[in-house]
Amino acid sequence: MINDASKSSDVDVQALTALLDGEYAEIRDLVRTNLSTHASVLEEAEELGIDAFRERVRELTVELAATGQTGMGFPKEYGGGGDIGASIAAFETLAYGDLSLLVKVGVQFGLFGGAILHLGTERHHRAHLPDLITGKLMGCFAMTETGHGSNVQALGTVATYDTASQEFVITTHGDAARKDYIGNAARHAELAVVFAQLEVAGRSEGVHAFVVPIRVDGATAPGVRIEDAGRKMGLNGVDNGRLWFDGVRVPREALLNRFADVTPDGAYESPIENPGRRFFTMLGTLVQGRVSVGGGAINAAKVALAIATKYAVRRRQFEAASDGEEQLLLDYGMHQRRLLPLLARTYALHFAQDVVRTQLHEVFSGDRDDEQARRELEARAAGTKALGTWHATRTIQECREACGGAGYLAVNRFAALKADSDVFTTFEGDNHVLLQLVAKGLLTNYAHEFEDLDQLGMVRFVTGQAVETVIERTSVHKLLERVRDLLPGGDEWDQEAGLLDRDYQLAMVRFREEHMLAGLARRLKRGLDEKGDPGVVFSHVQDHVISVARAHVERLVLEAFVDKLRTLPDGGDDGNDDGNKVALGLLCDLFALSTIESDRAWFMEHGRLTVQRSKAISREINNLCRKVRPLAVDLVDAWGIPSAMLRSPDLVG
Amino acid sequence: MINDASKSSDVDVQALTALLDGEYAEIRDLVRTNLSTHASVLEEAEELGIDAFRERVRELTVELAATGQTGMGFPKEYGGGGDIGASIAAFETLAYGDLSLLVKVGVQFGLFGGAILHLGTERHHRAHLPDLITGKLMGCFAMTETGHGSNVQALGTVATYDTASQEFVITTHGDAARKDYIGNAARHAELAVVFAQLEVAGRSEGVHAFVVPIRVDGATAPGVRIEDAGRKMGLNGVDNGRLWFDGVRVPREALLNRFADVTPDGAYESPIENPGRRFFTMLGTLVQGRVSVGGGAINAAKVALAIATKYAVRRRQFEAASDGEEQLLLDYGMHQRRLLPLLARTYALHFAQDVVRTQLHEVFSGDRDDEQARRELEARAAGTKALGTWHATRTIQECREACGGAGYLAVNRFAALKADSDVFTTFEGDNHVLLQLVAKGLLTNYAHEFEDLDQLGMVRFVTGQAVETVIERTSVHKLLERVRDLLPGGDEWDQEAGLLDRDYQLAMVRFREEHMLAGLARRLKRGLDEKGDPGVVFSHVQDHVISVARAHVERLVLEAFVDKLRTLPDGGDDGNDDGNKVALGLLCDLFALSTIESDRAWFMEHGRLTVQRSKAISREINNLCRKVRPLAVDLVDAWGIPSAMLRSPDLVG
Repeated sequence: MINDASKSSDVDVQALTALLDGEYAEIRDLVRTNLSTHASVLEEAEELGIDAFRERVRELTVELAATGQTGMGFPKEYGGGGDIGASIAAFETLAYGDLSLLVKVGVQFGLFGGAILHLGTERHHRAHLPDLITGKLMGCFAMTETGHGSNVQALGTVATYDTASQEFVITTHGDAARKDYIGNAARHAELAVVFAQLEVAGRSEGVHAFVVPIRVDGATAPGVRIEDAGRKMGLNGVDNGRLWFDGVRVPREALLNRFADVTPDGAYESPIENPGRRFFTMLGTLVQGRVSVGGGAINAAKVALAIATKYAVRRRQFEAASDGEEQLLLDYGMHQRRLLPLLARTYALHFAQDVVRTQLHEVFSGDRDDEQARRELEARAAGTKALGTWHATRTIQECREACGGAGYLAVNRFAALKADSDVFTTFEGDNHVLLQLVAKGLLTNYAHEFEDLDQLGMVRFVTGQAVETVIERTSVHKLLERVRDLLPGGDEWDQEAGLLDRDYQLAMVRFREEHMLAGLARRLKRGLDEKGDPGVVFSHVQDHVISVARAHVERLVLEAFVDKLRTLPDGGDDGNDDGNKVALGLLCDLFALSTIESDRAWFMEHGRLTVQRSKAISREINNLCRKVRPLAVDLVDAWGIPSAMLRSPDLVG
Repeated sequence: MINDASKSSDVDVQALTALLDGEYAEIRDLVRTNLSTHASVLEEAEELGIDAFRERVRELTVELAATGQTGMGFPKEYGGGGDIGASIAAFETLAYGDLSLLVKVGVQFGLFGGAILHLGTERHHRAHLPDLITGKLMGCFAMTETGHGSNVQALGTVATYDTASQEFVITTHGDAARKDYIGNAARHAELAVVFAQLEVAGRSEGVHAFVVPIRVDGATAPGVRIEDAGRKMGLNGVDNGRLWFDGVRVPREALLNRFADVTPDGAYESPIENPGRRFFTMLGTLVQGRVSVGGGAINAAKVALAIATKYAVRRRQFEAASDGEEQLLLDYGMHQRRLLPLLARTYALHFAQDVVRTQLHEVFSGDRDDEQARRELEARAAGTKALGTWHATRTIQECREACGGAGYLAVNRFAALKADSDVFTTFEGDNHVLLQLVAKGLLTNYAHEFEDLDQLGMVRFVTGQAVETVIERTSVHKLLERVRDLLPGGDEWDQEAGLLDRDYQLAMVRFREEHMLAGLARRLKRGLDEKGDPGVVFSHVQDHVISVARAHVERLVLEAFVDKLRTLPDGGDDGNDDGNKVALGLLCDLFALSTIESDRAWFMEHGRLTVQRSKAISREINNLCRKVRPLAVDLVDAWGIPSAMLRSPDLVG
């Protein structure tokens, strides 16, 4: 046995679980109990055919609803729990189990229920919330079309107001306008919230949402065509489908009219004058979907890491020392390098998710609901969703490979985790599109509605008005001056501060973000000055746009981790921090340094890292891995994943 | 429409296909025809249950055998094609289609047939080859055990020679020694080639292979226990199983006795005296499996890239210019960055695969079969397999995401590609283990059998004897001196040569390899001098070991591409190169520079890249992407993937 890391401290697993669960421990424990009760769904996902599994997932959705776990986000008066933060926490925890069930719950209560709740008014709430909260009424969220996924403003479905009958007439114009990939549509939904271009008196008022019956007593409603989207890579317990509407008539009251309405005699009215702003206000209310998916992805990654970590402390392969015994996988330096930075990043994202969930709760509970707060929430939700879902894809893949051939067997969970979570990087907003929205928020200082302005508009806006402001605003200007004064010979940080100085780590990721942002603004302006075509300019800087957004979100993630650490009480009378604080500190260092390491080329290119220090960071990461190694099992146990959710009988023992 | 890249040259698709197919155009076309004939297997993989699909795959295997495509590697006298290179080319091409069928073919003809051919002698050839070539006799390759996958030398199954009966008695000692993940075992194999520790007269002679009947007339043979390995992430048309042997007796002649034999009265004899060398000579004959998987993975990546590229020139999303039309995905800079370097790397790996296939053919045809050639082949096969399979995993994932939600539908191929190819990074040698073998070969200058020496032995060998030699041998020593003379102020390359100078690109990747190798040797020596425990030393440098191997293989890949370009004739009378040579030149530059870019931190850390030049490389990559963009569809069409293999009716049109 080789283990040159002395166990520097003990982790109190139970206390760490309590810390991670936070204020939502109760609802999380309810979900854990429900997951264990229905653990057989993991096998059923493999054994049942698609039709039977879809029915099973529907059945379970209704059963979960009866326990209260899925209705936390709805007002109490309609049978909900009245706590949006708890509803996200419940969803996150549900991601430890079968992800078809997770997504079915997300479609029914998050997308469909959320649209009724946030876009509708009392008449819709009274009519639909009680039954949808129990799962008696199933519905779907029909936004995406075959021709338009990310660019929702360009949807092709049209809803024309007919004054004579006081009805909306909904029509799909061409196959590109068919609703596509719609969860719950192929089989179970009775109602659809349909997003369509509203036309009133010959005038287009932009995209609005309507409640449209698509099934009546189990039969497809007249004028509606439904097609099954067919087998998918994963999530086959969710019945995705396509919808066409051929002059389908719904009453005037079917318009979800919180932000706009049509009077009986055909006058369009809205408290929000600007059409773009109105549209993005509507979309913005749906931000909880992104917060949910991001949190779910992070927890799916935890399942993979828990299995791979437990396997790595059981599995031996090859002799490495002279004692004749084979060495544990997790005692290999490379294996530590593969798993432990991912473990650290998972913790970091967990705390970042706490922040975005809290912001969501504050905004939607009215605790802090102003324009600026909403835009910042939307940007943070988009960024956390993008990084969290990519992290899940990468982590699940690395963990599968780290479990070798055993990782390929379905019983060991990776098959489902990988296939089911794959689309998380795409749905609820394609990650690349989301990061562009994040960058736009930074460039415009959230001056506009979050999703307003396509890249064309963004380029014009930034170059036309904002670039000087951005350059002025980013304090990078001052930082650069300071660096210039100090170079050559490194700067203060390089010479004096240790790599494990939290302020050093924060300064590095802050500098990167600000420098990238100012550079992007300059490139946009220069490009437009020289070429004139904003499309070409944008295309040329697009990788820079994505990099800025990533840098921004990683800064937020590190700050979330550091802030969390600062809230932890200092140690006992002996002056030593407790084991959990020590362990989290190691993880925070590991996350910060591996984040810097993976972009160390950029830091060197921009004068923030000397060659010597860059190499020192890589060495320090190896040191940190060795220190985290003896704590690794406790750290994955602290996530409180019910053991039945791990399956993997031969891997986790 | 925005496209600021003028189409610099025309690609002659047909001529490029001919160039890529090379000397194996005929067999590749036969496979293409067979793939189209049996295209329905792609749907059957989804629609049939596991049992039915396994039978279907078996049936197709036999049908393919009848066309001659699967038997190319066997001697003509037994019904084969007598051309090992052609057998690999056929296998590679088959990877355009369903990968269960590919792996079934690989198990039957590559692993099982290959073991009979290469480890057996005439008696085994006469008895088994004719029927296994037609698929009438199905077999499996029972090497891996639950407890030992990568470390084959430590297998737990034992074959004891019983002189009285002149039989071997084969026994599974404990569940860790059960044969696991064995393809063809759960359902179809009649015979197994079983790897077991041979014991003769109380003495262990190491791992040897035996032909063992596991089914007789469809029933499990006495003393054998067979268990289905169950559902897997993918490849569910292959019946993987587990095997236990309880005192199973096989005649003395069941030993595959090309490299060692036991006389009737129980004397062990072998022409190879050293037991380790004997073992690795046996394993070495199986190198064709790695060459096959690497080639198959590269072609699976081509299918993904072909779909994503074709989609990206049809799909529009968001307005980017002022003309009111949405922009094609492939005209976005980020989308080019996502797909086109992968396209370039796929071409590079294709040519690297050509080299390793040619070497395999030469060694196994006896054209050039010496010890050094075998060891270099084994290292190259391991390295190409590792990089090729990781490339497939990464490329398929990126292409799925680049196709958005549509990429998630099974009809669009990514579901199967992703699930089926996932285990390629693990089977036929775990990629990390393979790269360690590559590094060992470099450190020891192939002084030992390729797979001999575990890390313990390697550390001792290198540090004990070889480190000075390695440091001396690597001309990095001289390079370093030269760099030292020239710095500060950059060196000759940096100051004078252009980024598109092929010699510059080659010098960069050669420098990296040599410098890393010398550094690794020094770290090993220093570690052992200081600490003494080779296991700890190895664990600390393991990431360095992997990096050296990657750098080595990437150098080989670039050299293969450059060598290929140099064989192409110059252009016509007008002095211009033809379009294909121009296109391949762009791809080679894009591959070389994106390889350097992705490791640019290392180059900066080691004084080979200035900050300015590093940024210039990133800009040049963007330029190259814009130049390749108008050629992209032609470049994927040149792979000659039968259109039925792409499916994706809504994506590729």
